[in-house]
Amino acid sequence: MAKAGLPSGTRDFLPEKLIFRQKVIATIKEVFERYGFLPLETPAMERLDVLSGKYGEEADKLIFKILKRGDELKEAIAKGEELADMGLRYDLTVPLCRVIAMHQNEIDFPFRRYQIQPVWRAERAQKGRYREFYQCDADIVGQEAPLPDAELVALTYEVLTALGFTEFVIRYNHRLLLSALAEKAMVPENKHFAFFTILDKLDKIGFGGLRDELKKLELSESSIGEILSIIELGQGREPTREDLDQKFNEFPEKWVRAYSQIVRMDYYAVDLGVPRSVLHWDISLARGLDYYTGPIFEVGVPKSGIGSICGGGRYDNLVGTFLEGRPGMPAAGISFGLERIIDLLSQKAELTFQHSLTTIVVIPYSADLNLFEYVLEVAKDLRSKRIATEIFPAPHRDMKYKFGWASKRKIPFVAIVGPDEIKERQVAFKNMTTGQQSKLPFGQLPPELKSG
Amino acid sequence: MAKAGLPSGTRDFLPEKLIFRQKVIATIKEVFERYGFLPLETPAMERLDVLSGKYGEEADKLIFKILKRGDELKEAIAKGEELADMGLRYDLTVPLCRVIAMHQNEIDFPFRRYQIQPVWRAERAQKGRYREFYQCDADIVGQEAPLPDAELVALTYEVLTALGFTEFVIRYNHRLLLSALAEKAMVPENKHFAFFTILDKLDKIGFGGLRDELKKLELSESSIGEILSIIELGQGREPTREDLDQKFNEFPEKWVRAYSQIVRMDYYAVDLGVPRSVLHWDISLARGLDYYTGPIFEVGVPKSGIGSICGGGRYDNLVGTFLEGRPGMPAAGISFGLERIIDLLSQKAELTFQHSLTTIVVIPYSADLNLFEYVLEVAKDLRSKRIATEIFPAPHRDMKYKFGWASKRKIPFVAIVGPDEIKERQVAFKNMTTGQQSKLPFGQLPPELKSG
Repeated sequence: MAKAGLPSGTRDFLPEKLIFRQKVIATIKEVFERYGFLPLETPAMERLDVLSGKYGEEADKLIFKILKRGDELKEAIAKGEELADMGLRYDLTVPLCRVIAMHQNEIDFPFRRYQIQPVWRAERAQKGRYREFYQCDADIVGQEAPLPDAELVALTYEVLTALGFTEFVIRYNHRLLLSALAEKAMVPENKHFAFFTILDKLDKIGFGGLRDELKKLELSESSIGEILSIIELGQGREPTREDLDQKFNEFPEKWVRAYSQIVRMDYYAVDLGVPRSVLHWDISLARGLDYYTGPIFEVGVPKSGIGSICGGGRYDNLVGTFLEGRPGMPAAGISFGLERIIDLLSQKAELTFQHSLTTIVVIPYSADLNLFEYVLEVAKDLRSKRIATEIFPAPHRDMKYKFGWASKRKIPFVAIVGPDEIKERQVAFKNMTTGQQSKLPFGQLPPELKSG
Repeated sequence: MAKAGLPSGTRDFLPEKLIFRQKVIATIKEVFERYGFLPLETPAMERLDVLSGKYGEEADKLIFKILKRGDELKEAIAKGEELADMGLRYDLTVPLCRVIAMHQNEIDFPFRRYQIQPVWRAERAQKGRYREFYQCDADIVGQEAPLPDAELVALTYEVLTALGFTEFVIRYNHRLLLSALAEKAMVPENKHFAFFTILDKLDKIGFGGLRDELKKLELSESSIGEILSIIELGQGREPTREDLDQKFNEFPEKWVRAYSQIVRMDYYAVDLGVPRSVLHWDISLARGLDYYTGPIFEVGVPKSGIGSICGGGRYDNLVGTFLEGRPGMPAAGISFGLERIIDLLSQKAELTFQHSLTTIVVIPYSADLNLFEYVLEVAKDLRSKRIATEIFPAPHRDMKYKFGWASKRKIPFVAIVGPDEIKERQVAFKNMTTGQQSKLPFGQLPPELKSG
């Protein structure tokens, strides 16, 4: 006898929650398409050489691997070789870059693609963190900064607004500015990524914590002071060109390019409809992934007690890693954290979960088999009018039970068929919300029961 | 440098094909919901003890297994134990039964659930056969035959009709009738399943082939003659009660029950709207899976050169295998072979593949940066009217290139913004289908460009 259990960190979605989830996804999809993005789907399994070495060493350990099969497996065991040949996808960005590399000649660039599919990570399962979860990504491949970046910011604002979020902040920064900051503070090249990761923790650890963590990188007191004074520019108010010109006068090219890109990105985003108050330049924002090269952004919901709900950025070199010798391609994307978004929305939406998608249930008055043909005919007629219809399954129960059954499922209408209805070729309807009843000739509907 | 390859037997869906695919799925989903079915989703990975021993020995070998991780993997290798702890789901029926067993007290029965998700099978990859493919299943759990079975037949008819199929046949049979036939021909109990599998091949191997295969089961000549004479009843015309009464008079209970169920199923299906001409009782129909117990059905498209496009049946004992000691539950379901359905529809639909979902592209007349703010404002206005809008990405190109770009993508409208338009606060529209141009004040749309 099999035990009926679920793998750790995975979930079943029963209808009540899934209907809500599907509405959220449909809203996101509608906005993506309104912004000219096209759908893409890739297989769950990818070759291990495609997945490996893209996300960093720690992340590589979290890839679920697929066991080789048959003789290949026997050989691998005998020779002590790699036991797996494939892995489950870890994100949607690496598969996108693989697709671009494989289909470069079929795709029209700039390629605006969206992808809404699950990804898998073998993380320690804990509350709110899953081993299978959905990502909703929109990316623009083949177009330089800053217009696509601004479009992604505008898209993000529109998606979150369409979902009903009112209080959120889009923070942005630029990886080149972070590089300039690292150079200015004389952080050695091989410690840049560690440095970015520390900066990224500012909202969790505060300025005191930041100072402590930077000390661990073995930076001098004056370097640390320099870093903190620049980061403070971005706290409370947005830094101005003058602030920055003064701070970065030694690194003109790098930071002028970064500055000009994010300022234009900010302006374009406002032109595209993002209120100025939603946009915050945050010099400490770094984003965890190694592959970013340009503007980066992240959305937080203050007071939610939840980290970021979406984030993204520009990754101009990643497509190139799949193209042997050929030139790479500029690219930028945004990823919505569907699970966190749904957690936040569910807190508000508790009462609106639907228990059924059915509009009407056809109820035979009794278990008399003579009623049955007419019951089926009524169901057929309602369905042909595109009304979601069920046939009541337990005709021998009493009418109180039958109404209770519909009411428990919040089905808004019932149609009752008894001997009188058959004789007169009528149907008795009851509106379960208002309690109103009406008897109508076969084929007619109460006015409030509209065809779909 | 990673190679950009796909695992054998898997596919990327680029937009052009995916848009078509998503329409097919949306049609199926709409009909499922119209028939009162609710969505369910389960994780891609299942525990190996849940998957194993449900489908038969050959099928078990086709399950993709997930390698254990960390210390557990080291231990498994050292001790020569099972290297995997999970597998990718092989179908949607076993996960459904696991869900029923785990959530029996939360679910309202009869539970009408649909599920549209990929499944994975490590079959030898070949044309039209994939290692990752979608199943679209609808099942009714907790209700005895024959009404749910008839509803599934009606649902099948409606789904295929909604998809545009006109020539298809729904064949049905009953597992108990096959058991009676096996008993009558004195097929030993342990060969029943092999016997059913042979019967199932009739349309491929014909009566001659059938006779040869039955000989291999070591049945007597008279048994084989008996079997063939009964199967011939179902060829050309549907068998009558008299035919069968005569043939099965030794097995009254078993076959009378089977007969009465499928006759009622057939009648109910007709009452629910299935034309009589679509329904064929086929005494040789067996279906490959071990778990069926009652009415079974399968849909073929004559002259398509393709096997069945959907099939299903009743499996009253499968849920019980997950319920330790508690009573099981009647259940029946239908599974649509999405890949074959899409292959068939694509043959007809070649010309209707969409290259874009975008309705309008906003084109700056030149690369003059002064145009840009107005370009973005026009895009913002169109999107706020729920019109799918893109901004043209290469403003320095000439107008011929710009129109060609929209035309190649089959985008039906363009909006052109130049210095005159800005001065007069107008927008120049061009209908790419009719060639008609119109200049309108900002915020107004040509009548044929309706808001979404």
